[in-house]
Amino acid sequence: MKQSMTLIPTLREVPADAEIKSHQLLLRAGYMRQNSSGVYSFMPLGKKVLQKVEAIVREEMDNAGAVELLMPALQQAEFWQESGRWYTYGPELMRLKDRNNREFALGATHEEVITSLIRDEVKSYKRLPLTLYQIQTKFRDEKRPRFGLLRGREFIMKDAYSFHASQESLDEVYNRLYQAYSNVFARCGLNFRAVIADSGAMGGKDTHEFMVLSDIGEDTIAYSDSSDYAANVEMAPVITRYEKSEEAEAALEKVHTPGQKSIEEVSAFLDTDATKCIKTLLFQVDDKQVVVLVRGDHEVNDIKLKNYYNASVVELAEPEATKEVLGCAIGSLGPIGVSDGIEVIADAAVEAIVNGVTGANEEDYHYINVNPGRDFTVTAYVDLRFIQEGDLSPDGNGTIQFAKGIEVGHVFKLGTRYSEAMNAVYLDENGRTQPMIMGCYGIGVSRTVAAIAEQFNDEKGLVWPGNIAPYQVHLIPVNMKDETQATVGEELYSELKAAGFDVLMDDRQERAGVKFADSDLIGLPIRVTVGKKAAEGILEVKIRKSGEVVEVNRSELAAKIRELLG
Amino acid sequence: MKQSMTLIPTLREVPADAEIKSHQLLLRAGYMRQNSSGVYSFMPLGKKVLQKVEAIVREEMDNAGAVELLMPALQQAEFWQESGRWYTYGPELMRLKDRNNREFALGATHEEVITSLIRDEVKSYKRLPLTLYQIQTKFRDEKRPRFGLLRGREFIMKDAYSFHASQESLDEVYNRLYQAYSNVFARCGLNFRAVIADSGAMGGKDTHEFMVLSDIGEDTIAYSDSSDYAANVEMAPVITRYEKSEEAEAALEKVHTPGQKSIEEVSAFLDTDATKCIKTLLFQVDDKQVVVLVRGDHEVNDIKLKNYYNASVVELAEPEATKEVLGCAIGSLGPIGVSDGIEVIADAAVEAIVNGVTGANEEDYHYINVNPGRDFTVTAYVDLRFIQEGDLSPDGNGTIQFAKGIEVGHVFKLGTRYSEAMNAVYLDENGRTQPMIMGCYGIGVSRTVAAIAEQFNDEKGLVWPGNIAPYQVHLIPVNMKDETQATVGEELYSELKAAGFDVLMDDRQERAGVKFADSDLIGLPIRVTVGKKAAEGILEVKIRKSGEVVEVNRSELAAKIRELLG
Repeated sequence: MKQSMTLIPTLREVPADAEIKSHQLLLRAGYMRQNSSGVYSFMPLGKKVLQKVEAIVREEMDNAGAVELLMPALQQAEFWQESGRWYTYGPELMRLKDRNNREFALGATHEEVITSLIRDEVKSYKRLPLTLYQIQTKFRDEKRPRFGLLRGREFIMKDAYSFHASQESLDEVYNRLYQAYSNVFARCGLNFRAVIADSGAMGGKDTHEFMVLSDIGEDTIAYSDSSDYAANVEMAPVITRYEKSEEAEAALEKVHTPGQKSIEEVSAFLDTDATKCIKTLLFQVDDKQVVVLVRGDHEVNDIKLKNYYNASVVELAEPEATKEVLGCAIGSLGPIGVSDGIEVIADAAVEAIVNGVTGANEEDYHYINVNPGRDFTVTAYVDLRFIQEGDLSPDGNGTIQFAKGIEVGHVFKLGTRYSEAMNAVYLDENGRTQPMIMGCYGIGVSRTVAAIAEQFNDEKGLVWPGNIAPYQVHLIPVNMKDETQATVGEELYSELKAAGFDVLMDDRQERAGVKFADSDLIGLPIRVTVGKKAAEGILEVKIRKSGEVVEVNRSELAAKIRELLG
Repeated sequence: MKQSMTLIPTLREVPADAEIKSHQLLLRAGYMRQNSSGVYSFMPLGKKVLQKVEAIVREEMDNAGAVELLMPALQQAEFWQESGRWYTYGPELMRLKDRNNREFALGATHEEVITSLIRDEVKSYKRLPLTLYQIQTKFRDEKRPRFGLLRGREFIMKDAYSFHASQESLDEVYNRLYQAYSNVFARCGLNFRAVIADSGAMGGKDTHEFMVLSDIGEDTIAYSDSSDYAANVEMAPVITRYEKSEEAEAALEKVHTPGQKSIEEVSAFLDTDATKCIKTLLFQVDDKQVVVLVRGDHEVNDIKLKNYYNASVVELAEPEATKEVLGCAIGSLGPIGVSDGIEVIADAAVEAIVNGVTGANEEDYHYINVNPGRDFTVTAYVDLRFIQEGDLSPDGNGTIQFAKGIEVGHVFKLGTRYSEAMNAVYLDENGRTQPMIMGCYGIGVSRTVAAIAEQFNDEKGLVWPGNIAPYQVHLIPVNMKDETQATVGEELYSELKAAGFDVLMDDRQERAGVKFADSDLIGLPIRVTVGKKAAEGILEVKIRKSGEVVEVNRSELAAKIRELLG
């Protein structure tokens, strides 16, 4: 492609509102333009990168035995009403009416459409399992679109759905797609982790998020420094065995702690350590109230609390409710003397505390020398806290580190959530009607493009991996008015294309400085400069990644490029 | 692909509401399913055909120098308000509001979006011309969606837009894309014509429709039986030179014609020919009234009338207005004695009439021996009628035939319609601001799939051309329970794939009759049957198109298939 024929609108300035590298560079290098908030046009270079990523996704999905189809964006409301999500999805689901006043959703995801399709077409276990996917534009009216392609309102997604007659079949396809996803992100050159994620009450084994490690990520990942264990920080279990100290139990004592409320204040005031404090909180767990205890240096993980109680909703109780139940406001709460009707549950670390500190349920008073079991009763000691950096890795290998991640993929065992709601059933081998067991699997394709841009750049611009770059070679005749350079440029353009390379030629009448700066910004792996030595048959080859420059004889150019691209 | 892995939901019955072959067969052969009126899912086979057609379109567009990009479906209302189409497009444009109550259109076409993009990025003649295209889902809320993919509400389109600094540059790109479109439809195997179409007052040279010839087409094409001339029937000029007969002019005479109103009635009653009658009609042309005359066997073409007067609106006058101006109702109208203020215009054929017949502007009376010029005055004799079968072709070669057509493509010289409305300007070589000159070019990609299905089928099902078929070879082990057949089937599946063929294998445990009927319905070019002779290394090869069956030795199978696919 010649630059005179295409549109690569590079920018010198960093666009306002573009906070992160990928957003800035994809705009500056002319890969995309914003139309409205969270809605973008992929300019020619951006479209090419998108196609490269799509091709990788398609190849890996096909290899994993998934079959491509294409469902519509216009989805009749009836489907979403059947699943119930018409009422629960909220304003993120874009809705419209047709000329006959029938309601539609713009596809944010396709569980409803595909479940309806499969229930109409598949009636017998003989036609299962089935794994179908599409690469398609999705619409979600994000409250705060930001970070360019990372959180947009119109974006490209690969979504797949599988249908099964047994849990084992689902497990098998899940594992196959897990591997396919690992292949996709590895081929994109990304530094990523497959992370155990929240799947609600089903437990952590049934869903993984694929996270690209990045400081600008919105999710925190807890990973082992010595194994491939990684989980969303909310999901990582704590397996630490807490040792009780040998210290003898002292007598319980109420002390005046005027104005001391936080763990830091109280432990400093009493000259003790946060690890000796028992943090006390009242939670509303569905329709019951529960006193929850964790060690002073720990935080309650409400997903663990929710899973323990198999609850729908878990939240911190309102201040008035806390005062009513415990007789005091937050800052002096404690488990001692809590009325019999209120359950007290504690994180496992609390059990090991000897002569601890806790609030006295009386403003400005705390107890010291508190000993669980002796001074108050606990229903159960279980894992209720967030994992922390330095904790033992849940798989027993190494210690936990934290990292931020950008979610680019998600595999999820749906079970019968949609098939039951929408009556997608089949006849099993015994002629009995069964709901299909489902899985769903997503890759944010345009988001993956942004994640690659976020990981592959330097101060001069983008630095694409060779298999993702829109073109492999940037051919730059320095001075198009110089007849030799222009001629050699044209000849090399034809020769390199004939040799099978994707070539972008800068045939613009621009200054050398402009051309080189644009070239670095655009970030193709290899730059071939046709300069003054072109007359002698010598060209300059620059490797974008290392900045290394070598002179190459024209006769050896193709071989050199092939070698450099690996 | 093995059929056990994919979903090809064939139907034995013709689905209700599917009136035409392509709609029926694409449903019956499991290529697509309807979601809601005019909205379809492309099932795995349909998606593959779509991809084949898309690949052809992409290749030809790239060869023609167009560059691919991807614009969003969500288009802010402001763009459409600037162009004015927000107010004129009507209910076909689907509209919605986002969570902040901002209005959006769902992309029905992208003139506004691309014009806005280019006006922001291109400021100088040096960056022109530019030709950009995308292959994308479009939304149009058709009043009466029908014929499956032929008139849907969500469909796939290739749309291209070009921007120029001169008319010559537009002409050049227009011609290049015209050729690219011809290549696309020829490669799809379609029997099509590039047809001169209506471009309003600009004249017929600036827009062509690509029409696939088909009885179910909604447009009528006038084409030459001896050249490549073809035009939308409304657009074809009549170049016949009418010879005046030698007959002597007789005296004008008013005759009683009780109850005789139509040309047929009057000519029969007076024992003359329709070609001797002068049909008289009153038209409202913008704000003036015009008497229009055509020969009795001809029909007024109001587009020609409109173009002659360069008018905005042309329609037949209301009955009351006709009575007021000519003193009589339709059935006895005529040009004799029309008051001076009313212009009389006639089709060229009228000038040659000698001793003709026309109404007397008096109920139940006609004149005979009417002679134009002698008995009434005509402002001008021009081409005002529809061309007819048997007319001389407008290019002077051959005679005109009619055919019905399905519009699959359209190339159009837009001029400055959008660039002026949306202020897309550039600086020319002299530093003057000029509006960009634009062209737009569309191909209905999903409609092309339907058009191919409409042209390639027989009573048993679809009969795809080899380069469009979802797979090239349908491999059918007749009895999967027969160990030899199943083994040979598996081996051939691997071998043929390794030899580079796209293979679909029917590995279902179904009866032979079901497999063969499905195979004919699906319509792959080559069927390879693994039957009882498989044990001896003999396979049956059937050519779907001709129905011809040959036995082939296993060792020669790949070569035979290659030969048959051409």
